[in-house]
Amino acid sequence: MEITLKREALSSTLHNINSVVDKSSTKPILSNFVISTKEEDNSNVEFSSTDYELSLVELITAEIKDPGSICVNAKKVFDIVKELKAEEVNIRSTEQLWIYINCGSSELRLPSVEVGLYPQTVLEKLPESITISVEDFKRSIDMTLFAAITNESRRNLMGVCLGKTNDQQTRWLSTDGHRLAQIIKSVDDIKIESENEVIVPRKALTEVRRVADLFGERVNITFDSRVMQFSGGNINFKTRLIEGKFPNCDPIIPKDNNLEILVNRESLVNSLRIVSSISSEKLRPVKLIISAGVLRLESEKADYGEVFDEIEASYEGEAFQIGFNARYLLDVLGVIESDDIILECKNSMSPTIIKSPTDESFLSVIMPLRVEW
Amino acid sequence: MEITLKREALSSTLHNINSVVDKSSTKPILSNFVISTKEEDNSNVEFSSTDYELSLVELITAEIKDPGSICVNAKKVFDIVKELKAEEVNIRSTEQLWIYINCGSSELRLPSVEVGLYPQTVLEKLPESITISVEDFKRSIDMTLFAAITNESRRNLMGVCLGKTNDQQTRWLSTDGHRLAQIIKSVDDIKIESENEVIVPRKALTEVRRVADLFGERVNITFDSRVMQFSGGNINFKTRLIEGKFPNCDPIIPKDNNLEILVNRESLVNSLRIVSSISSEKLRPVKLIISAGVLRLESEKADYGEVFDEIEASYEGEAFQIGFNARYLLDVLGVIESDDIILECKNSMSPTIIKSPTDESFLSVIMPLRVEW
Repeated sequence: MEITLKREALSSTLHNINSVVDKSSTKPILSNFVISTKEEDNSNVEFSSTDYELSLVELITAEIKDPGSICVNAKKVFDIVKELKAEEVNIRSTEQLWIYINCGSSELRLPSVEVGLYPQTVLEKLPESITISVEDFKRSIDMTLFAAITNESRRNLMGVCLGKTNDQQTRWLSTDGHRLAQIIKSVDDIKIESENEVIVPRKALTEVRRVADLFGERVNITFDSRVMQFSGGNINFKTRLIEGKFPNCDPIIPKDNNLEILVNRESLVNSLRIVSSISSEKLRPVKLIISAGVLRLESEKADYGEVFDEIEASYEGEAFQIGFNARYLLDVLGVIESDDIILECKNSMSPTIIKSPTDESFLSVIMPLRVEW
Repeated sequence: MEITLKREALSSTLHNINSVVDKSSTKPILSNFVISTKEEDNSNVEFSSTDYELSLVELITAEIKDPGSICVNAKKVFDIVKELKAEEVNIRSTEQLWIYINCGSSELRLPSVEVGLYPQTVLEKLPESITISVEDFKRSIDMTLFAAITNESRRNLMGVCLGKTNDQQTRWLSTDGHRLAQIIKSVDDIKIESENEVIVPRKALTEVRRVADLFGERVNITFDSRVMQFSGGNINFKTRLIEGKFPNCDPIIPKDNNLEILVNRESLVNSLRIVSSISSEKLRPVKLIISAGVLRLESEKADYGEVFDEIEASYEGEAFQIGFNARYLLDVLGVIESDDIILECKNSMSPTIIKSPTDESFLSVIMPLRVEW
């Protein structure tokens, strides 16, 4: 194989390739990636990498001098290519499995691996399909991924549940058992016949989100019960879906929370930071004391001190108090974009809704903490 | 004690205080700092912290309502103060050793420690004195600190040797046994009678360098055989000096290196990065092959591949080759500021001088590597 391509395009693709490549060294073959030319396409080469769960297939424009394919260490190539300066890069393989990379006055010689040993990623024609604007796609991931579980304790919660509503919108839903986030977004096109709900893994969403702008204006999501593909521009991701059933969260979303507190989002974030900074616990418990016009936040009373702060709040009901993990509140306040936010409570023991007064599509539910101080 | 002061000044001082505070938790008392009012000064309070080796004493303007002193945890106070937003902060202590910090609507209550338990820093009148512009001071540290030893293997090399030349300039000198850096700087004022050479520890220079701009235009360095103080503006650092004798480096600085290679600094940095990036060794050995007009860099030949690169060089002599740890070359090229640099060599086995063609005050010497490829 011999190809010549733009250094900048190569470098950006290698950056994407590297984020998919398996970093644990348990399966050495997965530290490589593949470049291959395609019979039917004379002006693009295909870069692909996989960690078995998530795969990336990206096309870049190249001048193909000699078709073929190579498999080579992703990190070594990326580390060197990012230091190169000349405009074009030539990549050439020999029969002895050496790869030569030339750029300006630099020449790099690397050993390569038999392409046949590397797990091949085959893009499929999948039955279910959603087409969504990239902006809505990014937003839907941002608004839900934070509430998915991060440890392996419950595999079916280690991702976001993507389903459709009765009125042909997408519903993105995540929960870790203590909180929940849901966003409902209209789409350009949706054709779902049998898979009404699938669970998309964290890693796939994180990586796809990171490069989402490269999809262009729209991303096409296709899937069946096993795998999902995200395609747009020259990029395709393919991920396995998480097996299992996502819990039915509808009963958890409260319908009769009648205490509504409206506060400025930035003020609340600032107060939570002040009050929670004294705590040495990871989730940083705080108490919210709500009375007419005022929201008072108090840290727990600990050996190392205590803090309180007060902010203005629009609230007319009876005074009450409720505890939360500040971390959970900060997570959701970090993704809401409006100036104000609404806390919808029932009492100190019931799940509370956090939402924006200007955006009906999103809500988050947080279980309160029993505060004993 | 009760004082009111500007939040911004407090926050910046606490940042400095915290960088001196001992992070290891082996001596819990050292996680605190002290605020105290002075009898003779009604408009400033003194903040001080120490880790026994290095101490900081900083004055800030404050309204003093009730004189006194407190000793309190540095990290807790800093973590919270940096989140505060209102302009003024009130700090008040009670007889029960509680500290109240109020700012806007926030109130923080922290336990404090008996001031008497905290090691006091006393600024002294020291016999030897150097006054130097802050710009030259920063540059002198930057140009030498990188070559000081970082591990504890040779305590007398864990800092920079500060001495004076016969013509009343300062000489800053560091070495780790494999390389050396020296800068000679004129000063505004120098009065050195008995301590012709002292060894200033790494940590002190790192911290003093970080906040050097706060000294104002000039910094006054005073010392005896045990301690050194850096004073300027409202800030004073006091550090213990390293005991022991700094090795005589003069015989190591070659006088008869007659092969002079002039190269563009950025090109050489870039080439070194390209060529060294393939290496998995920490110090990244490279070979420099020098011939008329061309400097060729080659990585070692390893299982995981090899790289070479070529750059233009002004050189007229006979071709020769020499090996270096790329890390050492990159360190010194990172502090030299001129467009070009000069490598002054004798042969493949002799120490090489790296310097700037436009700045006579600085030189670095690097021992070559035996290259066996």
